[in-house]
Amino acid sequence: MTQGQQSRAAVIGLGSMGMGAAKSLLRAGWTVTGCDAGEAQRKAWTDAGGTLALTPAEAAREVSAAVVLVVNAAQTEEVLFGPDGAANGLPQGAVILSCATMAPEDARRLAAMAAEKGLLYLDAPLSGGAAKAASGELTVMASGAPETFAAARPVLDVIAAKVYELGDEPGQGSAYKIVNQLLAGAHIAAACEAMTFAAKLGLDLNTVYDVITASAGNSWMFENRVPHILDGDYTPRSAVSIFTKDLGIVTGIAHKAQLPLPVASTALQLFLATAASGMARDDDASVARMMANVAGVELPARKA
Amino acid sequence: MTQGQQSRAAVIGLGSMGMGAAKSLLRAGWTVTGCDAGEAQRKAWTDAGGTLALTPAEAAREVSAAVVLVVNAAQTEEVLFGPDGAANGLPQGAVILSCATMAPEDARRLAAMAAEKGLLYLDAPLSGGAAKAASGELTVMASGAPETFAAARPVLDVIAAKVYELGDEPGQGSAYKIVNQLLAGAHIAAACEAMTFAAKLGLDLNTVYDVITASAGNSWMFENRVPHILDGDYTPRSAVSIFTKDLGIVTGIAHKAQLPLPVASTALQLFLATAASGMARDDDASVARMMANVAGVELPARKA
Repeated sequence: MTQGQQSRAAVIGLGSMGMGAAKSLLRAGWTVTGCDAGEAQRKAWTDAGGTLALTPAEAAREVSAAVVLVVNAAQTEEVLFGPDGAANGLPQGAVILSCATMAPEDARRLAAMAAEKGLLYLDAPLSGGAAKAASGELTVMASGAPETFAAARPVLDVIAAKVYELGDEPGQGSAYKIVNQLLAGAHIAAACEAMTFAAKLGLDLNTVYDVITASAGNSWMFENRVPHILDGDYTPRSAVSIFTKDLGIVTGIAHKAQLPLPVASTALQLFLATAASGMARDDDASVARMMANVAGVELPARKA
Repeated sequence: MTQGQQSRAAVIGLGSMGMGAAKSLLRAGWTVTGCDAGEAQRKAWTDAGGTLALTPAEAAREVSAAVVLVVNAAQTEEVLFGPDGAANGLPQGAVILSCATMAPEDARRLAAMAAEKGLLYLDAPLSGGAAKAASGELTVMASGAPETFAAARPVLDVIAAKVYELGDEPGQGSAYKIVNQLLAGAHIAAACEAMTFAAKLGLDLNTVYDVITASAGNSWMFENRVPHILDGDYTPRSAVSIFTKDLGIVTGIAHKAQLPLPVASTALQLFLATAASGMARDDDASVARMMANVAGVELPARKA
C-alpha cells in the first residue's frame, strides 16, 4: 500500500447507513468514492460533494479500505466478488469492512474468499441507525485478526463512537449482531402490539408513550419506533423487509441448531404478515398498522 | 376524619413492594400499621419497628389511608371487603390506594364497592420494583376523582417519585399498567430467549450483556434481569408466577375484545412452561433456564 492510499476509502452502498458513514469520512478529510445501484442515492452523494464510481471494482481502486453497507450476505458477495466486485479493484492488503447483518457462517465464508485474494476482512456489523451513522457515532460489533483491526482502525475512528472487539475470527461480530437483531425485532413487534392494545383499551396514546418510556416496559425500540405510530408516519426509516430478513436469519440459524425461539418466530410472523399486506417497504412500525387493520382498531392518522 | 388520623396509614401486604412503601412511610414520620398473612413478612416488619395488626380491619382503624399491595384483584377484594377486610375498619372518607395489577373492570368494580361504604378508592398500580419501593421512588399509574387524589396525596408524596394522573375514573390507571405488563413480560421472555440463543452460539454472555445494553436491542427488562442469568441466581426478585398472572390478565382482556396478541400470548406460554417445570416461585429470568433445559444449552451456574 502506498502513502497516497492511506486516506482514500470506498463506500459500497449509499443507503442511510452508508451515506452517513461516507459523509463522516468526507468530513474527516478522506477521499471517498461511493457506489450504489440507486439513482436517488447516487444523486444525493454527488450533491454532498462525493465522488461516484460506476462499479464497486472502480470505486475500490487505490483505496486502503472499502466499507460495504449493502443489505445482506448475497449482496455483499456480489459487490465484493461478482464480475464488477470490489475485490477486483482493491490493492493487496486493503481492508474490507463488511457491515451487513448476516449469518456467522456467511461472514466466515466471505472472509475466506477475501483472504484468497490477499485482502483483509473485518466482520463489522453495525448498530445505531441513520442518525448515529450521520454523526459518525455508530456502534460496531467487530471481529477479525489483529492486523485487520489495525488496518480498519482509521475508518472505525471516523464512523464509530464505540467499537466492540469481539474476537479474532470473522463470524463472531455477526453472531453478536444477530442476537441484537432477535431482541430488536421482538421489541418492535411487542411495541406495535402494545400500542394496538392500548388503542383498543381507549387510552391516550401519547400518554402511553410518556408512561411506558419512564417505566419497566420500556425498550430502545419502543422509545424509537412508537413516535412513528403517534405521528401516523410510516415513511421508512428502517423497513419491514429488514426484519423479515434479519429474523429469518435468526430463526434459520436456531432451527439448524435445533433451538426453538418462540418469541422471535412469532415476531417474524408479524413482520411477514405486515409485508404480505403490502407494507414491506414501509417503516417497520407498520406492524402496528397491520394489527390495527386486522382488529378494526384506529391508530393516529398522518398529521398534515 | 380527625387530625390524629392524618399521619396514620395501614399497609396491607408486606411483600417487597409493600414493605418498601411501609418503611418509606415510617421514615417520613407516619404511624404505620402493617398486615400480612406471611410469618416472615410479619417478623421483618416488627423488626423494622412497625406496628402489626392481625387483620386488615384492625390495621385500618383510625387511619387516613390504606395502601393495598397484595397480588391480584381477588386478594384485594378479600383484604378490603372480606369478613376481616379493611373496609370494616376504615373511617368514613378514608382513602384506599389499590396497587395490585388487575383488569380495569376489576378496578371499577372494587371502586364501586368502596364508594358504597363511603370510602375513596384510588386505582394506583405501581412500577419500579423492590429497590424503588425501598427508596420511596415508585412510579404510580393512578386514576380517580380529584378528591381521591387529594386524599391520597400525602401518601403518594412519600412512596413515589412520579405519579401519573391518568384520568378521573378508576380503571384507567390499571389499563396503563396492563399495557406496561404486556411489554415487561414480552421483554423478559425475549431477553431469556436471546441469552439462550447466545449461549447456543457459543458467545461470551457477559460480553453479550455489555454489547446489547449499549445497542438498539436493549430493554429495561434485559438490563435488569439478564444479570440474574449471568450470576446463575434465580432467587426471586420477581417470580415467574407474577407474569403467568399478569400476561393472563393481558391476554384475557384482549381475547374478550377480540384482539389477537401473538407476542404476549407466546410470552405467556413460555412463563407457563417455566412454571410447569417447577419454577413458578423462582425469579422470572428462569424462563432462560427452562429454555436451556429444553435445548440442552448450558447457562452460568450459581457462583459460590
